[in-house]
Amino acid sequence: MSAQIEIDPKLVENYILKLASHGEYGETGVWRTAYSPEWVGATDLYASWCFDAGLETTRDAVGNVWGKLHGTHADAGSIVSGSHIDSQKPGGRYDGALGAVAALIATKALKEQFGKPKKTIEAVAFCEEESSRFPSANFWGSRAITGRIKPEDPENTIGFDGETAADAMRQIGLDPARIPEAMRRDIDAFIELHIEQGPILEEADIPVAVVNAVTGIRHYSVELRGTQNHAGAFPMDIRRDPMAGFMEIGSRAIDTAHRWGRPAVTTVGRVIAEPNATAVIPSTVRFSLDVRHPDPAKCKRLYETHESMMREVAARRNLDLDWTIQIDHKPCTSEPAIVSMLQKCAAEQRIPILTMASGAGHDTQQMASIAKVAMIFVRSKEGRSHTPEEFSSIPDIVAGIRLLAAGLHKLAY
Amino acid sequence: MSAQIEIDPKLVENYILKLASHGEYGETGVWRTAYSPEWVGATDLYASWCFDAGLETTRDAVGNVWGKLHGTHADAGSIVSGSHIDSQKPGGRYDGALGAVAALIATKALKEQFGKPKKTIEAVAFCEEESSRFPSANFWGSRAITGRIKPEDPENTIGFDGETAADAMRQIGLDPARIPEAMRRDIDAFIELHIEQGPILEEADIPVAVVNAVTGIRHYSVELRGTQNHAGAFPMDIRRDPMAGFMEIGSRAIDTAHRWGRPAVTTVGRVIAEPNATAVIPSTVRFSLDVRHPDPAKCKRLYETHESMMREVAARRNLDLDWTIQIDHKPCTSEPAIVSMLQKCAAEQRIPILTMASGAGHDTQQMASIAKVAMIFVRSKEGRSHTPEEFSSIPDIVAGIRLLAAGLHKLAY
Repeated sequence: MSAQIEIDPKLVENYILKLASHGEYGETGVWRTAYSPEWVGATDLYASWCFDAGLETTRDAVGNVWGKLHGTHADAGSIVSGSHIDSQKPGGRYDGALGAVAALIATKALKEQFGKPKKTIEAVAFCEEESSRFPSANFWGSRAITGRIKPEDPENTIGFDGETAADAMRQIGLDPARIPEAMRRDIDAFIELHIEQGPILEEADIPVAVVNAVTGIRHYSVELRGTQNHAGAFPMDIRRDPMAGFMEIGSRAIDTAHRWGRPAVTTVGRVIAEPNATAVIPSTVRFSLDVRHPDPAKCKRLYETHESMMREVAARRNLDLDWTIQIDHKPCTSEPAIVSMLQKCAAEQRIPILTMASGAGHDTQQMASIAKVAMIFVRSKEGRSHTPEEFSSIPDIVAGIRLLAAGLHKLAY
Repeated sequence: MSAQIEIDPKLVENYILKLASHGEYGETGVWRTAYSPEWVGATDLYASWCFDAGLETTRDAVGNVWGKLHGTHADAGSIVSGSHIDSQKPGGRYDGALGAVAALIATKALKEQFGKPKKTIEAVAFCEEESSRFPSANFWGSRAITGRIKPEDPENTIGFDGETAADAMRQIGLDPARIPEAMRRDIDAFIELHIEQGPILEEADIPVAVVNAVTGIRHYSVELRGTQNHAGAFPMDIRRDPMAGFMEIGSRAIDTAHRWGRPAVTTVGRVIAEPNATAVIPSTVRFSLDVRHPDPAKCKRLYETHESMMREVAARRNLDLDWTIQIDHKPCTSEPAIVSMLQKCAAEQRIPILTMASGAGHDTQQMASIAKVAMIFVRSKEGRSHTPEEFSSIPDIVAGIRLLAAGLHKLAY
């Protein structure tokens, strides 16, 4: 039987609400973009909590805040947990922030209930993940830690308001030239707690999930070109209609993902037709395909299935077909030993869990390049996120933090 | 055997080119919107040709130009032919203008070769059909003749440049209050010659068609509403995805029209998704359905088939569905006696013809409310229109005018 870890629900609720007061937006919303005054307030608060918990508290060169509980085995790699402290515009109280708070509360509870660990435990609040201020910044905090920010990136990362990430950093006393100093090569394992952002746990009536993979994601931008003609005078059988081709491709891609079953997904979120007039067969239709699968082999096969189907439809309909791949993230598999350890901890702590893949991207994907990783999901009400209405209950959150703390205990003590 | 009518190809070509010089656009284009200076030049030229041909030449209250060859039976209704003299922006030399020229040349040839008819023959150049200057003006000339312009319409018909049709008329000396004077109740039959604007004659290698109906047209503006969600975290099987619903509906509507075969058509020309982002299941998709059939009963059944299919798809996919009908023109059937007379004339004149329906709308649909109607189509190169590239050959045009003249001869002599 593993250690039973006590997590104080009042403390959890208090931390969530106090952190959400920095960038408070309406009743339950948060508007807290990277390096903004609200963000500075939130990171200062997080650092003060780390300090009060007796952790060694530092802010690295990119603005991530760390709370370190030193272990007795100084040379062993650290066991790290955390998530991002920035939000959507507006977002809610939980996306990102909950993972930063959970890491701190788990570390503080372990320190209070079990004392000094063998391996060093660290809680981290990543400075940026949402791309809500700088559209090309995403994973800015974890990319700095993993050494994936290039020297020219800070000046080339332009905000929606035209400001560069470099300028935004300088305004709050950070030197973008020093970002490489944030790089870490001494992290053994990373576990991120996050809200699910989907409906699977709610549907299953289970509070918490162990995440065994983060999905592979590819964004195709597809263009179909036909011949623009009169909607009345041109018979159906001799048209080169890119709208008909698009609708067949989109329907079949969605049907394929549906038939494959969870966790395969395919989404057509974007479509632009030209000239987009009621009585005109379009000349061109451009659309997006968002395709995701967490299993590397199946992911590849899903991409290939869609691609060969698109070629077949375009050829049969005598349409010109081009596509570009705009985002291509490989699936990130969790460390099997950590997944099975977390499953075991859940059983010992009597926390009901699902084991599932994440369909959304997370900092964990970045951290996987330097550490063994896994994630813990907490149930989201109605699967909602990126909105002030996102919500997870305190009992569910406490269950998630207890599982996180038990896992950190297993890895560090 | 009917009268053999001579039509001079040089005169035909000369008239087409001279008329096209008013509003000349590039090598072969025409830009001639209603009541513009180019339009005034073209109508003046047309009137001068009517006058030179010895026809009684008048301009009515809305700006249509008439050339009248009086018959001996003064009380019998007139036999009228013509089409519109305005163009798209830019259009070509043939859409509309060819029908006005053909009517004049046929009337002139009949006068020269057969003298005074029993029934009065009139050639007309309608002032407006294309809605290229005033989006809600369409059929302005033939609507005035049939009494379908309401007193408030001239002030409420606003141009793309903000000017009213009433002001545009006043600027060239026409009084919009007098439009009702253009109304006619003494027209027995109306035959419009027009380019096909589709590829059917070219595909069949036939120069001319007798048109037995003008299609019924309905424009649906459809809205599907679902639930906006994360493209990664929401499983396929529990989505309320209006894009998936739209693509299924559009594909099935197009497939239905395709399977019904010619002349059924259905087109999805327009689609707008919200928020139209790659990684987001849309909340709303709005799209158009352009549905056409020239047979009244089949037209009704095609509309009903699409409507019940839309309801079924929306219900099965748990989507909210609304539509409005933005254009609803009933099918217009040609006078069977005139159609069979024209078929007989074509055989007598040894002109190869198809008998077909028009998939585009025409002034003939308006004229059908006050007269027996039919149309003659001339082959279009590659089925193109509404572009400077539209083209019909002089031999095809001469064949069409010979058929028109033979028909007018049968009706008036």
